[in-house]
Amino acid sequence: MTRPLSVALAGLGTVGVGVLRLLRDNADLIARHAGRPLVVTAVAARERGRERGVSLAGLRWYEDPVALAADPGIDVVVELIGGAEGPARALVEAALAAAKPVVTANKALIAEHGAALAARAEAAGVTLAFEAAVAGGIPVIKVLREGLAANRIARVSGILNGTCNYILTVMRERGREFAEALHEAQKLGYAEADPAFDIDGIDAAHKLAILAALAFGRPPDLKSVHVEGIRAVSALDIAFARELGYRIKLLGIARRTEGGIEARVHPAMVPESAPIARVEGVYNAVVAEGDFVGTVMLEGRGAGAGPTASAVLADLIDLARGRATPVWGAANGALGAAPSVGIEWHQGAYYLRLMVLDRPGVIADVTAVLRDRGVSLESMLQRGRAPGEVVPVVLVTHETEEARMRAALAEIADLDAVLERPALIRIEPA
Amino acid sequence: MTRPLSVALAGLGTVGVGVLRLLRDNADLIARHAGRPLVVTAVAARERGRERGVSLAGLRWYEDPVALAADPGIDVVVELIGGAEGPARALVEAALAAAKPVVTANKALIAEHGAALAARAEAAGVTLAFEAAVAGGIPVIKVLREGLAANRIARVSGILNGTCNYILTVMRERGREFAEALHEAQKLGYAEADPAFDIDGIDAAHKLAILAALAFGRPPDLKSVHVEGIRAVSALDIAFARELGYRIKLLGIARRTEGGIEARVHPAMVPESAPIARVEGVYNAVVAEGDFVGTVMLEGRGAGAGPTASAVLADLIDLARGRATPVWGAANGALGAAPSVGIEWHQGAYYLRLMVLDRPGVIADVTAVLRDRGVSLESMLQRGRAPGEVVPVVLVTHETEEARMRAALAEIADLDAVLERPALIRIEPA
Repeated sequence: MTRPLSVALAGLGTVGVGVLRLLRDNADLIARHAGRPLVVTAVAARERGRERGVSLAGLRWYEDPVALAADPGIDVVVELIGGAEGPARALVEAALAAAKPVVTANKALIAEHGAALAARAEAAGVTLAFEAAVAGGIPVIKVLREGLAANRIARVSGILNGTCNYILTVMRERGREFAEALHEAQKLGYAEADPAFDIDGIDAAHKLAILAALAFGRPPDLKSVHVEGIRAVSALDIAFARELGYRIKLLGIARRTEGGIEARVHPAMVPESAPIARVEGVYNAVVAEGDFVGTVMLEGRGAGAGPTASAVLADLIDLARGRATPVWGAANGALGAAPSVGIEWHQGAYYLRLMVLDRPGVIADVTAVLRDRGVSLESMLQRGRAPGEVVPVVLVTHETEEARMRAALAEIADLDAVLERPALIRIEPA
Repeated sequence: MTRPLSVALAGLGTVGVGVLRLLRDNADLIARHAGRPLVVTAVAARERGRERGVSLAGLRWYEDPVALAADPGIDVVVELIGGAEGPARALVEAALAAAKPVVTANKALIAEHGAALAARAEAAGVTLAFEAAVAGGIPVIKVLREGLAANRIARVSGILNGTCNYILTVMRERGREFAEALHEAQKLGYAEADPAFDIDGIDAAHKLAILAALAFGRPPDLKSVHVEGIRAVSALDIAFARELGYRIKLLGIARRTEGGIEARVHPAMVPESAPIARVEGVYNAVVAEGDFVGTVMLEGRGAGAGPTASAVLADLIDLARGRATPVWGAANGALGAAPSVGIEWHQGAYYLRLMVLDRPGVIADVTAVLRDRGVSLESMLQRGRAPGEVVPVVLVTHETEEARMRAALAEIADLDAVLERPALIRIEPA
């Protein structure tokens, strides 16, 4: 065995402690697979005295994470602080400037600054690795960047946020409304006290921007990702989805279209028979479609100390073995520049649920708007009759353009007999 | 970009032609991901004149594949001949002796001679790569050996043979008997004219031996794999499985037990709610359970020219990039020597289906045997009454030892009222 790999760890939250624990529990196995021991020699965190359940004895301690980059005794910096700016960004930039390889779990940082950081890594001739940034322990970065590297990818999609998937699963299985299911997720620690980052789709958008960059060989373009969260998903829509043979999932989807790369995060109806429809609870899944390999799906735990530590260690073992891959799968100069296309160009089928006054002529008015906008209907559902009362009406369209659908929706929402804000959910093929 | 990687290809069957096609169709993308062009410069096959749908112009042609190893103009040998002995083995040994890295799709060769070949590769300081040997395009070797490398694996299992999975899917969906479903698979090209290698579980056993070696860090031990195929699975058992909430799949399962590594291939009942139960048709899936990552499942096409070529190219791109991993994940001297344990030590639940004469006392006789052997019953099913006729009776046991179950089975088969050979199918947890 050669010299140990000396690791500096910045951030001792759940994941940081998970990494320390994994390195200690499986030290022998890791050394065999890495060809040499991996040893944490320095750490940076805010509160030195805090009880973390692991011993920090013998480790060099830094209050300022950026100082880690200058420690001459370390071979690699592991950044587990989080956030696209501030100390995380400063540390990663300082480490690359010092020609130290970096391993990070920071999806916001990579999604927002991935292009610039890749340039710095390439200039320094070191690795910037981020397996833990997407889908926790599922090695989806490695699979896309190496395992499927010979394929032209047409589409990559997935359930990228376990909090949302847990909430949607509870809503479906127990007929709960969103607020109740969120509350339950918070009690179990699956959702933060301030859940906006997860439930508004931002976390999933970061991950999708990274997957799209890898799949389509261009730097990440977070700004072009269309993002909708799950706050507006109602128990009623979940019940209708079931009736129509669908499940509602928060999906991240990026695909190659004629006009460029389309990337979007939103609640979607997927056929119950689709493998991804069966991915429930806090599990994540990623589906990639390659021209030679066909469809490959990966499923597993998308978060938590153990799975995330497993991904961080996979990157460290690659480093220890000298296995290197350019950040976005190819040299920065060889990356493509496929344009992004906006959601208004999306083509797909739609589920539209209205709350209407049950009186003659309402359906005729609604369908006339759709006809005038060139949107053709596949089916219509109206359960129960209640003359003079408000009832739900569900319309499912054939494939159409988002821009047409939105124009129709605005007109439909303005009809006198349409009483609440209509619910619009995109339908995805299996 | 640096010098092209010069590839020699032995075997121009479906997969060989798929590799040529993929290398030509996606040449630019592959060069970007590999950091340099990949160019086939020499091929070996039996019939030069055969029409293969791809041009072989400009390639050096060898009738004797072993001669490829001595061609000074090549950087790597791709072996797609197949078979554990003969020219495939001779070529791989010659290539390693000449210090040429080898990429192969040959599961029989790797399962049978994997330990010796790893020693030769290590001695020569070159790579022996075999992503295409297991589960076609699904990068399961890479995931186990690199992506989950920090985990202690407790169990690896999967649907490893698409032919069997297709047959079992047709039997279930359309109520067919085995022979009919096999015939249909043959017509569609999913089963060979001589299907024994697939339907008797031998192909799956090769793949399981490889997965078990990677998962448990020891050389492959094909001889210790218990193998049963699917010939004995009947439409009746599939119908009973449905009634009990199970699906029947041919699984390969390797797990760490107290006594050592248990490895077996056999038809198994899996709960309908288990993700692997939903993997249908020619699809393959592999499930790995790691101590930190939890359960990870990979699913995709397990065979065919495109998926297999995708896996071969992934190995070639790794080579072109200089990414190397020891054959079994660690240096040969650092591999473990966990013993294998025989199927008689297996602990699990069992499904037992008997054809019995419908007369008083038969069930009492059968259950008395089970009681005397210490096997406890979870449920019993007898559909319909037909006094004096032959009727099926299904017994489901609690967890017990294989040896006890076999002893009981032998006694039960000897009872006068038990008329056909009993069907015994192991039940696997989700």
